[in-house]
Amino acid sequence: MSPDARILSALRRTGDVGTSGAELARDLGISRAAVWSRIEELRKLGYDIAASPHQGYVLRGTPDRLHSDDLISRLPADRILGREIQVFLETSSTNDIVDKLARDGVEEGVAVFAEAQSQGRGRLGRRWESPAGKGLWMSVLLRPSLHPSAATQLTVMAAVAVARAIQNSTGLVPDIKWPNDLLFHGRKCGGILLELGAELDHIRHIVLGIGLDVNLHASDFPPAVRSLATSLASELGRSVDRPALAAQLLSELDSAYRDVRTGRFAALADEWEQRCTTLGHRISIRTGSREITGTAESLDEQGALLVRTEHGRLERIVGGDVTLLGTSPL
Amino acid sequence: MSPDARILSALRRTGDVGTSGAELARDLGISRAAVWSRIEELRKLGYDIAASPHQGYVLRGTPDRLHSDDLISRLPADRILGREIQVFLETSSTNDIVDKLARDGVEEGVAVFAEAQSQGRGRLGRRWESPAGKGLWMSVLLRPSLHPSAATQLTVMAAVAVARAIQNSTGLVPDIKWPNDLLFHGRKCGGILLELGAELDHIRHIVLGIGLDVNLHASDFPPAVRSLATSLASELGRSVDRPALAAQLLSELDSAYRDVRTGRFAALADEWEQRCTTLGHRISIRTGSREITGTAESLDEQGALLVRTEHGRLERIVGGDVTLLGTSPL
Repeated sequence: MSPDARILSALRRTGDVGTSGAELARDLGISRAAVWSRIEELRKLGYDIAASPHQGYVLRGTPDRLHSDDLISRLPADRILGREIQVFLETSSTNDIVDKLARDGVEEGVAVFAEAQSQGRGRLGRRWESPAGKGLWMSVLLRPSLHPSAATQLTVMAAVAVARAIQNSTGLVPDIKWPNDLLFHGRKCGGILLELGAELDHIRHIVLGIGLDVNLHASDFPPAVRSLATSLASELGRSVDRPALAAQLLSELDSAYRDVRTGRFAALADEWEQRCTTLGHRISIRTGSREITGTAESLDEQGALLVRTEHGRLERIVGGDVTLLGTSPL
Repeated sequence: MSPDARILSALRRTGDVGTSGAELARDLGISRAAVWSRIEELRKLGYDIAASPHQGYVLRGTPDRLHSDDLISRLPADRILGREIQVFLETSSTNDIVDKLARDGVEEGVAVFAEAQSQGRGRLGRRWESPAGKGLWMSVLLRPSLHPSAATQLTVMAAVAVARAIQNSTGLVPDIKWPNDLLFHGRKCGGILLELGAELDHIRHIVLGIGLDVNLHASDFPPAVRSLATSLASELGRSVDRPALAAQLLSELDSAYRDVRTGRFAALADEWEQRCTTLGHRISIRTGSREITGTAESLDEQGALLVRTEHGRLERIVGGDVTLLGTSPL
């Protein structure tokens, strides 16, 4: 952990009780003057750190900005996802950054955030608007020992992790629309893009990209999608603490990924089914060049969607664009 | 087509009859002096171009070197695979080059050759020895409109194309060992590596890598693999014309890929089954963390291998390392 991360971590640990400059100096193995210097730099970044003779330093407030040291200071030491965090003020797409890291052989777990993306993308190369400072635009590198046909487990895992993070951070309970959209009242507030590099029977890497509309206002959405989209702030009626949500998200992803790696995917799939509002509905799915109509029945054990078509056949779908056609409760 | 490619193409077309400098100048829209200049440069590269007052220029011999203009001059104009050809004296791996082109959005069909590779690879990152000037080390970029689960069709297609190219160029008939090895008498002379970039239901790109040991001698193989490997030259008893084989290979790949794209995969699969010596044998396959033993029965309609296990179950395998256990003819 860097000195700044360790300072923030210590201040978070002691809360209102505070930490003295002497303790921090001892902790970090640096001089008190150096501690003072780091504190001054953190203040310039917007961290409201009060100093008093009795308590020492107390963290009173944090800025609405993503900083890797700050995110790291909020996470447990034994995590895999978010073991390394990079934050860009702006980038083309965090998925691009992580894809490059993947091909450079970097270990799994690195997480990349951007305050803004100029070429954020969703499925099939569609544009994902990523205005500065208003959302969480991030990607994580995974190297699961899964057969490529089981990669669907990771989309399910990610959707559950994001829903849990939103719920734990804000109290809001989003709906999941298969395969990887997060909605409130049918309006999308977040999406997940999973990109694979693989051989036929071996996943080399997975780039898991997540886009969450946290503090966007209606005017921040292009007119064409304004009625189809929402943000956590719109649903909550107040701004959401983005850095706190970012840390919660990494924490939930780490925990859910651990479940996938230790053979506990079934419980994630169950929770997904509970949170998913696609099941039990008549839907139309476009996947590749096919269009399938039927009732969304359940997930299979790999996380693919099982759709009962009009002919009574059960179709197994791994990805696609879903349109709800109306409710036919099972 | 570049001037050099057009010159070589014209000379190939007219053979011993020859082409005059005047015709070439007219064809290319350049002066006769410029034609002479290009001919001189080609001669320096090793192209044996004779000139006589009566016949004009005649191509008498070509060097054992890969040049993109030369390869292009041997191919039909309406091809997709090999529409653009790049040749490197040395590179890390042609799959790396093509992977980068893929991510830069280049159209499918570009083919990259290297005379030598410093980091040639096979499946699962294994090293593939690629000594200078003795083999064909190449990769092609594909963007098929196939579901990721149908990507196996491309490995089958490639194996058939390579086998046809070897047979048409040299008369030798290689065996195919599932999924993508080419052998003579159980000794490997070539392999195919398929790498995908994909979303869950959408292939973004495929890098098809092919390594063919054309003119290697026993001493060119590391001692550890000497008894497991062979080359076309060893099997034939004489050197093989590499550039001619390279062009034949691109031509066969283009034709076979066309079949895949137009729904004619079944015929390729049938030919594959005829050429494959894995079928009907008892085998053990390691794929991922699983080990499966049984009899290799057939390919399914996507090109995956169907193995009948001891319990009578039919297992569908998309990739793995096969060991022959002994013959049990069906």
